[in-house]
Amino acid sequence: MADAVLHCSRCRKDFSAREVIWSCPDCGSMLEMVPSPHISDPRRRTRLLEAAVEAGHPPGIWRFGPMMQVDATRPVSLGEGNTPVVKLENLGRRMGIPHLHAKLEYLAPTGSFKDRGTSAMVTQARALGVGRIVEDSSGNAGASFAAYCAAAGMAATIFVPASAPRAKKAQIACYGAEVVEVQGSREAVTEAAMARCRQEDGAYYASHNWNPFFLEGTKTFAYEVAAQFDFDPPEHVIMPVGNGSLFLGAWRGFGELRGMGLLERIPKLSIAQAQGCMPIVDAHRRGLDKPVAIPTSPTVAGGISIARPSRGALILRAIRESGGSGAAVTDAEILEYQRALASTDGILCEPTSAAAVAALAHLARRGFFGRDERVLVAITGSGLKDPGALEMR
Amino acid sequence: MADAVLHCSRCRKDFSAREVIWSCPDCGSMLEMVPSPHISDPRRRTRLLEAAVEAGHPPGIWRFGPMMQVDATRPVSLGEGNTPVVKLENLGRRMGIPHLHAKLEYLAPTGSFKDRGTSAMVTQARALGVGRIVEDSSGNAGASFAAYCAAAGMAATIFVPASAPRAKKAQIACYGAEVVEVQGSREAVTEAAMARCRQEDGAYYASHNWNPFFLEGTKTFAYEVAAQFDFDPPEHVIMPVGNGSLFLGAWRGFGELRGMGLLERIPKLSIAQAQGCMPIVDAHRRGLDKPVAIPTSPTVAGGISIARPSRGALILRAIRESGGSGAAVTDAEILEYQRALASTDGILCEPTSAAAVAALAHLARRGFFGRDERVLVAITGSGLKDPGALEMR
Repeated sequence: MADAVLHCSRCRKDFSAREVIWSCPDCGSMLEMVPSPHISDPRRRTRLLEAAVEAGHPPGIWRFGPMMQVDATRPVSLGEGNTPVVKLENLGRRMGIPHLHAKLEYLAPTGSFKDRGTSAMVTQARALGVGRIVEDSSGNAGASFAAYCAAAGMAATIFVPASAPRAKKAQIACYGAEVVEVQGSREAVTEAAMARCRQEDGAYYASHNWNPFFLEGTKTFAYEVAAQFDFDPPEHVIMPVGNGSLFLGAWRGFGELRGMGLLERIPKLSIAQAQGCMPIVDAHRRGLDKPVAIPTSPTVAGGISIARPSRGALILRAIRESGGSGAAVTDAEILEYQRALASTDGILCEPTSAAAVAALAHLARRGFFGRDERVLVAITGSGLKDPGALEMR
Repeated sequence: MADAVLHCSRCRKDFSAREVIWSCPDCGSMLEMVPSPHISDPRRRTRLLEAAVEAGHPPGIWRFGPMMQVDATRPVSLGEGNTPVVKLENLGRRMGIPHLHAKLEYLAPTGSFKDRGTSAMVTQARALGVGRIVEDSSGNAGASFAAYCAAAGMAATIFVPASAPRAKKAQIACYGAEVVEVQGSREAVTEAAMARCRQEDGAYYASHNWNPFFLEGTKTFAYEVAAQFDFDPPEHVIMPVGNGSLFLGAWRGFGELRGMGLLERIPKLSIAQAQGCMPIVDAHRRGLDKPVAIPTSPTVAGGISIARPSRGALILRAIRESGGSGAAVTDAEILEYQRALASTDGILCEPTSAAAVAALAHLARRGFFGRDERVLVAITGSGLKDPGALEMR
């Protein structure tokens, strides 16, 4: 950790990870984590990982602490990670995907995969002496930050869209965080949060979409998948993507494992978006290097309703380089597959996660999956998060 | 499994676990599982357990499959078990319990500890060829059964109190189960479910409170705790108790581990009840062998609002023999500690679980915990289960 470097993607300057910054102090652009020599030496890394996996202590994502470029002296942990993989026998048969597996990312302390990244980021923020975290979120990340800040003894202010489900807002408030509702677009919510950070001294903008430490947590997804499949991971991994904080973490993690020689290949990484908001699927289809502005409309998949993804170009690159694909699904399909997953395989997810299940059907129809290939879908959020949606049927 | 025996607690007859029965076919009384020679030989058992723990495959409760007296050839699993233990630094300090830990049983496929028992029971029912399961539940067990029956391809009919939270009923329906609402007391719901089983041929009454296989699943709680604390478990374990399906499972599991010589002692097992419905705490205080009828009133802790617990005498024995205790808490305390656990340590549980946290305060004030003793509280259900309760504040 000591020598971790944050690199500005625009002005190309490097900054120490020990500075309390979340974007380039010079030009305001996004910072990316540079793998430190400490962690990128394959032999050293492999030794660290083997020791971590064997020890099994501490459990969850911190088992991979030595691979995460955060100050792991005193992790802020609520038991995140270590999510199970189950086979979807019934839905797999129905969809013609005989080797279909789900990784139940919703079995997380606050009910979504976000807890992986939050645990890493709040740990780093506390080590840096941050007293107040400001975050904007459509719901899942907000609840996650509120919970981890409570455990870390840090104040949290969460900006949320006024239109977010009531249960999600109530969950955030329960953790003792300040909840600020913002009218208008998702982007307006981000703007309001950033404005607060500019006004208030000592407030740290800890967006899961900007902060480089967040992906250090979500990359543990890949480490777990590799271990769960005995270092022969599924040929395909698919997940719902808005800003891609799990997707890019997974890509980073699989890449590190291949770099260490522990994986011969990485899975093909595919994404699901809602037809109402599909900037990345659109750009991928058109062969673009980065997403462009496209018209959007409201969707039940609130967690991926992101019109201008902050790392869109990187997501497109991950799809392309891994050999993955993308599919955009309708709200009707999302609700159909949410119900189908629950009634055929006993797993109740939120609509955003069901988008990935619906996308499986698209990709299967296109013949994207070979008969013998294993497919892993990430079930990213709990169906209990938005019970209003359940009762509407 | 082959030689597992179900013993009638009243007429003393034995029945094979291969019969499709859930109560004594002769007198209708409760059946208890008799440890088979296969599993009660300490040396053989220790060997089985060591192999299971080392293998780590399959993960979760089925890691302990060889210790469970169910037909484990083809487990119906949704990734249950393997729940994390976290230290409650902040609340522990506030309560004067420096070594306070929580086992997050709500990190389960359907959001409650019930999944341990359901996985075992539905696995056994499928192996026996059962086609339809009938269960009565205040909510958590109903959702759990509905989910596992969906995964097992079995039909499920769940009888629920009409007064159960809407979100819980919606969750059950999502899994494709038939939901039957019953007006009146919790006992009336049980009666209605039993009546259906008498009417319908092939319907199996799979109550978590009656069925002897359920505890074979919940006993994995003890096996996990033992492994997580390196076979030196906490001095105290406390949990909310209604019918005691987790409590008795834990007692059984710890007892088996001590029988195998893997534990020198078992934890003191204590219970929490709501003051509105406290038959066991009342009987324990009065030194009775079994609970007696006492007046009850409604409580926010719906999961433990059980006026006549079916295994009340056994629960009292477990408290007494383990050296545990009990405390009854008010609804105001339950809601106060639900909020406190979320805002100080980042864990959002349902009111029923918060009863155990509130009871900790009672026991601490009484000086029941030694300064150096470790205390483990089971957080049995997710706070997302009843969001209506969150919004009421």
